[in-house]
Amino acid sequence: MTRIRMVGFDADDTLWRSEDYFHAAQSEFERIVAGYVDLDDVAARLYAIEKANIALFGYGVKGMALSMVEAAVQITDARIHARDLHRIVGLAKDLLQHPVELLPGVREAVEAVARDFDIVLITKGDLFHQEKKVRDCGLADLFRRIEIVSEKDTATYARLLEEFDCEAREFLMVGNSLRSDIAPVLALGGWGIHVPYHLTWTHETEADVAEGAPRLQVVERAGQVPDAVRAAARAASATARAS
Amino acid sequence: MTRIRMVGFDADDTLWRSEDYFHAAQSEFERIVAGYVDLDDVAARLYAIEKANIALFGYGVKGMALSMVEAAVQITDARIHARDLHRIVGLAKDLLQHPVELLPGVREAVEAVARDFDIVLITKGDLFHQEKKVRDCGLADLFRRIEIVSEKDTATYARLLEEFDCEAREFLMVGNSLRSDIAPVLALGGWGIHVPYHLTWTHETEADVAEGAPRLQVVERAGQVPDAVRAAARAASATARAS
Repeated sequence: MTRIRMVGFDADDTLWRSEDYFHAAQSEFERIVAGYVDLDDVAARLYAIEKANIALFGYGVKGMALSMVEAAVQITDARIHARDLHRIVGLAKDLLQHPVELLPGVREAVEAVARDFDIVLITKGDLFHQEKKVRDCGLADLFRRIEIVSEKDTATYARLLEEFDCEAREFLMVGNSLRSDIAPVLALGGWGIHVPYHLTWTHETEADVAEGAPRLQVVERAGQVPDAVRAAARAASATARAS
Repeated sequence: MTRIRMVGFDADDTLWRSEDYFHAAQSEFERIVAGYVDLDDVAARLYAIEKANIALFGYGVKGMALSMVEAAVQITDARIHARDLHRIVGLAKDLLQHPVELLPGVREAVEAVARDFDIVLITKGDLFHQEKKVRDCGLADLFRRIEIVSEKDTATYARLLEEFDCEAREFLMVGNSLRSDIAPVLALGGWGIHVPYHLTWTHETEADVAEGAPRLQVVERAGQVPDAVRAAARAASATARAS
């Protein structure tokens, strides 16, 4: 019989607030360069540089800050003052120090799912920063495994599921990113619960997930996740019986 | 009977060249700021800032580059030009792209040890960069586990050994850093083979390891590692028989 055995949770903007802080840093970046140039495409130019640098820097605050230094120099045609570039390093330090703030209802939702399923945390980004947030979040003990990875694509999920000794059809992933949490797990034959966040980095919205995809549910908030997991578990059992 | 069951290898400056590249980047940093100030303590001032930032940035190229931007601004009293600060981002990109160059004799030494022992790779630093180097090094398939950690202290080794289901007295670590590879493993009751590298970052030399510590051997080059591992294995068995 097929049943959902394991539930994975994304961390940034699924368990705790993250993109708000990046967004605030980006607004501050825009204010800094606005002292030199009057352009309306600063955000797009920054994103173009960030995206080009991902292959080298990976995800996370430090890579973002280095891309911001590069973007600020390019956008201002190198007229930006050293003190303003130094402020970008300060933005990175602030981001790395902000306290972990769980999203509403997350603690109860994770505890509820953990009562019925093995749960794992799968997050991407900077190892050092993610470890700090996991330590500080107060939920770490609930997770059977905590996996910090450099990219969340089908190859990564396939490797992790093999390590977990769990088949994709027995695995459900909860997260806010279609690109990183939902699309690769569905592609492998697993289940997804998409919990959109009010802010999403452009990069994470770039994904091919058909609306109404099988094995995918969309919920509005963490409090609805336990019921959605139970619904998926029932659907998984029904599929197994029918086949 | 006690026997050595598992051998861990450090990566940077144990398997492949790393500090040379950091050292070259630091020399370039010194040349950049020398255009603004005539000081003989630039390296010490950079290290002071890097060390203060480790708690926030962790190890690796990106944190180094952000510390360099901060140090350059401070050292030049913010007189440094944006183009020169941009060159520091370029130094980081160069470091992240350099090809993996195995040290002489490493391939044969690792293969020889792998014939008799389970071997694991334990490296600290930036997840994204270390994964890239592991992928590129051509030795990854020999290792039973590859662990990229944010800090190599006794707590980390204790956690890993529990995951490996290996007691400390059955574990030997090979590495170039007394602080990160040798001292914590000896402290737990394990074995160490120190292979000093001709360049060592100041940070990694800060360790308390008594000269002539039991269970520690020092060898000059990778080619001597397999014999040293065998010698440790014999000593471990002898200890077990005597006790």
